[in-house]
Amino acid sequence: GSSDAKKVCKRKELSYGDRAQLPSTHPLAAQLLTLMEEKKTNLCVSADLTACEELLQLADLLGPHICLLKTHVDILQDFSPAFTKSLVDLALKHNFLIFEDRKFADIGNTVKHQYEGGLFQISSWSHIVNAHAVPGPGVVKGLSEVGHPLNRGCLLIAQMSSQGSLATGDYTQAVVKMAEEHSDFVFGFISGSRISSKPEFLHMTPGVQMLSGGDCLGQQYSRPDDVIFNKGSDIIIVGRGILGASDMVKAAAEYREAGWNAYLKRLNNSCL
Amino acid sequence: GSSDAKKVCKRKELSYGDRAQLPSTHPLAAQLLTLMEEKKTNLCVSADLTACEELLQLADLLGPHICLLKTHVDILQDFSPAFTKSLVDLALKHNFLIFEDRKFADIGNTVKHQYEGGLFQISSWSHIVNAHAVPGPGVVKGLSEVGHPLNRGCLLIAQMSSQGSLATGDYTQAVVKMAEEHSDFVFGFISGSRISSKPEFLHMTPGVQMLSGGDCLGQQYSRPDDVIFNKGSDIIIVGRGILGASDMVKAAAEYREAGWNAYLKRLNNSCL
Repeated sequence: GSSDAKKVCKRKELSYGDRAQLPSTHPLAAQLLTLMEEKKTNLCVSADLTACEELLQLADLLGPHICLLKTHVDILQDFSPAFTKSLVDLALKHNFLIFEDRKFADIGNTVKHQYEGGLFQISSWSHIVNAHAVPGPGVVKGLSEVGHPLNRGCLLIAQMSSQGSLATGDYTQAVVKMAEEHSDFVFGFISGSRISSKPEFLHMTPGVQMLSGGDCLGQQYSRPDDVIFNKGSDIIIVGRGILGASDMVKAAAEYREAGWNAYLKRLNNSCL
Repeated sequence: GSSDAKKVCKRKELSYGDRAQLPSTHPLAAQLLTLMEEKKTNLCVSADLTACEELLQLADLLGPHICLLKTHVDILQDFSPAFTKSLVDLALKHNFLIFEDRKFADIGNTVKHQYEGGLFQISSWSHIVNAHAVPGPGVVKGLSEVGHPLNRGCLLIAQMSSQGSLATGDYTQAVVKMAEEHSDFVFGFISGSRISSKPEFLHMTPGVQMLSGGDCLGQQYSRPDDVIFNKGSDIIIVGRGILGASDMVKAAAEYREAGWNAYLKRLNNSCL
């Protein structure tokens, strides 16, 4: 019958640009969604390098292709305040945001100091940070006391790409609830798939490579199309797939195209 | 009847010194248990200061009273390699161990770099680190690749003192299992109570104060006697209860006595 022929319409997919315009989208999420739409990229590069100069060169080289640069400043052997200044300049030059992947995971009073102070002064230069929900809501409250007045934003880690992760089931659900209760500072998730139907929240997925597989320490890879089209995530986070390539710019362009095409396919398959 | 009058004997309590001698006790745990027995202290001070010189003065002042000094080097505004050298010297002078409370919580490949590299080079000076189990066993495997050859040891965070923590129930049980499966590197837990009956494992409890209560970011305090005698933990971790006192040495001596007396009471109440 005609009902069988009808397309099964599960959800209306908003574009990144549409989601940027929603009244309750976090200002930083809106900025990110807007630049993704403008630059046509949902690629975040995980810049796991150990020398500042190399990281800056990478950011300048790949800047045109990415929406986000993800850092681990605590693995840089020559970190300095001058480095963060240069990184912020490159973010402005190429219109991307900086995401320090600190995975805060302590009580509120401690993470406040870790976010604002020390040698790294993360809150002064990183637009986005992330946190584990395992300490309870105090971790978000502590970070928010520092980051919210600076217009920063936070992602909660709801799922992980590593084998045997405990962030599953009830844990993941508790993370979604915690995010909803602190949406003035938390604007999305680190997750393998879409776990909240609220279009204001962004989902970012690490462990993305063109080939599936893993490393010898439990990392498990997913492909861009699977992450964006099938799983409904918004941003692919690619590390060794680009940094390990002989031509990093070519690899970044390929991941960017794969991620963007998967996004367009998702939009085209959605309800009108 | 005579059976009613009989003392209910739930468990045989080994002394810290006895536990140091067990054949499968981790060498670092044995070292810690031995110095606890010798110095008659189960007190760990949480040295949450932001200036190196102040932290070193504190370590020198409280060194005679403590078994462990817990640090957060990423909140020090003037961290330097010279600082860690001085700290190690003080640990030798006063016979305590250093515990960098880093709460590693990433995939194995990342925590390896965070533990060994960067400005902090944590593995080069900290006897003990801790990790969240949420990434799965890869986090322990990654840390162990760096720390095990250096005779370092690791604690897994099985419970937290903060309100609404997700480290409860099945999560806590999964952490115990992960520790048992990696006991060549993991020698104990951060927990509110004894969660493993294996005497080789040490239990350390944060959020200890003489008065119960909490802070405005979800921290919840327990008393020394409750933690050691009732809950069966081994080490009390005290921060603001000592650092906020007008006479820090006097406060440390009081916590040390309270923790040690609770331990003696536990030994005296145990089966013969």
